[in-house]
Amino acid sequence: MHTLKLTVEYDGTHFFGFQRQKSHRTVQEELENALRRFLHEPVTVHGAGRTDSGVHAVHQTAHIKIKNGMPAEAVRKALNGILPRDVAVKKVEEVPSNFHARFSARGKVYQYFIWNSRVRSPLNESIAWQYPVKLDVEKMKQAAHKIAGKRDFKSFQSSGSKKEMGTVRHLSRLEISKKGPLISFKFEGNGFLYNMVRNIVGTLVWVGEGKRSPGDLDLILASKDRRKAGPTAPAKGLFLVKVKY
Amino acid sequence: MHTLKLTVEYDGTHFFGFQRQKSHRTVQEELENALRRFLHEPVTVHGAGRTDSGVHAVHQTAHIKIKNGMPAEAVRKALNGILPRDVAVKKVEEVPSNFHARFSARGKVYQYFIWNSRVRSPLNESIAWQYPVKLDVEKMKQAAHKIAGKRDFKSFQSSGSKKEMGTVRHLSRLEISKKGPLISFKFEGNGFLYNMVRNIVGTLVWVGEGKRSPGDLDLILASKDRRKAGPTAPAKGLFLVKVKY
Repeated sequence: MHTLKLTVEYDGTHFFGFQRQKSHRTVQEELENALRRFLHEPVTVHGAGRTDSGVHAVHQTAHIKIKNGMPAEAVRKALNGILPRDVAVKKVEEVPSNFHARFSARGKVYQYFIWNSRVRSPLNESIAWQYPVKLDVEKMKQAAHKIAGKRDFKSFQSSGSKKEMGTVRHLSRLEISKKGPLISFKFEGNGFLYNMVRNIVGTLVWVGEGKRSPGDLDLILASKDRRKAGPTAPAKGLFLVKVKY
Repeated sequence: MHTLKLTVEYDGTHFFGFQRQKSHRTVQEELENALRRFLHEPVTVHGAGRTDSGVHAVHQTAHIKIKNGMPAEAVRKALNGILPRDVAVKKVEEVPSNFHARFSARGKVYQYFIWNSRVRSPLNESIAWQYPVKLDVEKMKQAAHKIAGKRDFKSFQSSGSKKEMGTVRHLSRLEISKKGPLISFKFEGNGFLYNMVRNIVGTLVWVGEGKRSPGDLDLILASKDRRKAGPTAPAKGLFLVKVKY
């Protein structure tokens, strides 16, 4: 058996997320169908994690185990010749048999974009959340400072998540920057709870428009109550940027 | 009569260009239909210039003449409430009656993107031309240096263009930069011939892959022969960034 690591990019707009579902189009399904066509064996694609419907990926990672000894680079070329335009495999590497896309991962990087203008932007329509109320980026940075670190992020975990290994995570980086109307949030951590990034962004938006103060973040975190935090930001502004090993 | 200047953004992917056509969806048609719905008078939208099928605009400009005295900001809001997601009006201003989007224009800025990688990028699919052969950006910069300036650009004018006022134009800026696999070309000039930007990009790509040397640009320009220049780069990588008045 050969173990191959795949690095995958996709525009999530027309996918119901990464993970295979019965009656919806997913990235996993597209990959498995494409692989089967030229490997001539059933293949299961193991992703580093689910991404939700509408979420994009610059670098999602997955692994497969196959009997076929086709060289990694040939697999990449064959895959990209078959895959539809909104998904591509950027890299294929043969890795040790104990490599697991999910369990070997040491951390992830996500990015979130807000288009902060009362005028929507057609060119950013599918990649950013348009927010019409002017946001105070300095206040959001102060709040972000209170969120980053090793903490219990239970207040930012959406219900409906599968059983997670506790709710303490190390969010080593939460950087906010602004260029014109585009606000970017960069998250790096050793693990993320279900909807954690989108729930943090929704809470930071509350701070940015003055519904909460940066100091309120201490209370929100301490409450361990999802209902104290802000709304879940829409999926379309979220990018999985990197999975670290 | 009131004269209003409109600043328009659109994702050109699903438009057959700006200018109204009989049986294809265009930006002009969407604008005129939307305006008629709340102004209750026939309106003709005069664009600063055509953009071809698939070309995008960050800042296209147009003007309209209307009897209705509705405030400019109210027109903007009403328009954006009706317009589909791939087009929006960023600004509406009342301007003097002699303002003409096309004839008053003093210059334009265009940007073109190439995704220079053997792997296609789903996230850049609709906004950049994927070119798989490694391009020598330094050589392209040398060639660009020979192209910029006030010159006869006849070699870069596609046939099928309407009668233009001669073929001499002042290309005041042609800057090339690279960030990862993304190569950006920025053009600024007092006027552009039909397909001039895309024909220059196609020729620079010839230089970048070594099919022509930077020095050959002198011969190509002097020939005044479209057949000596490179192919027309695809529309989807092209953005109209600004119209200057």
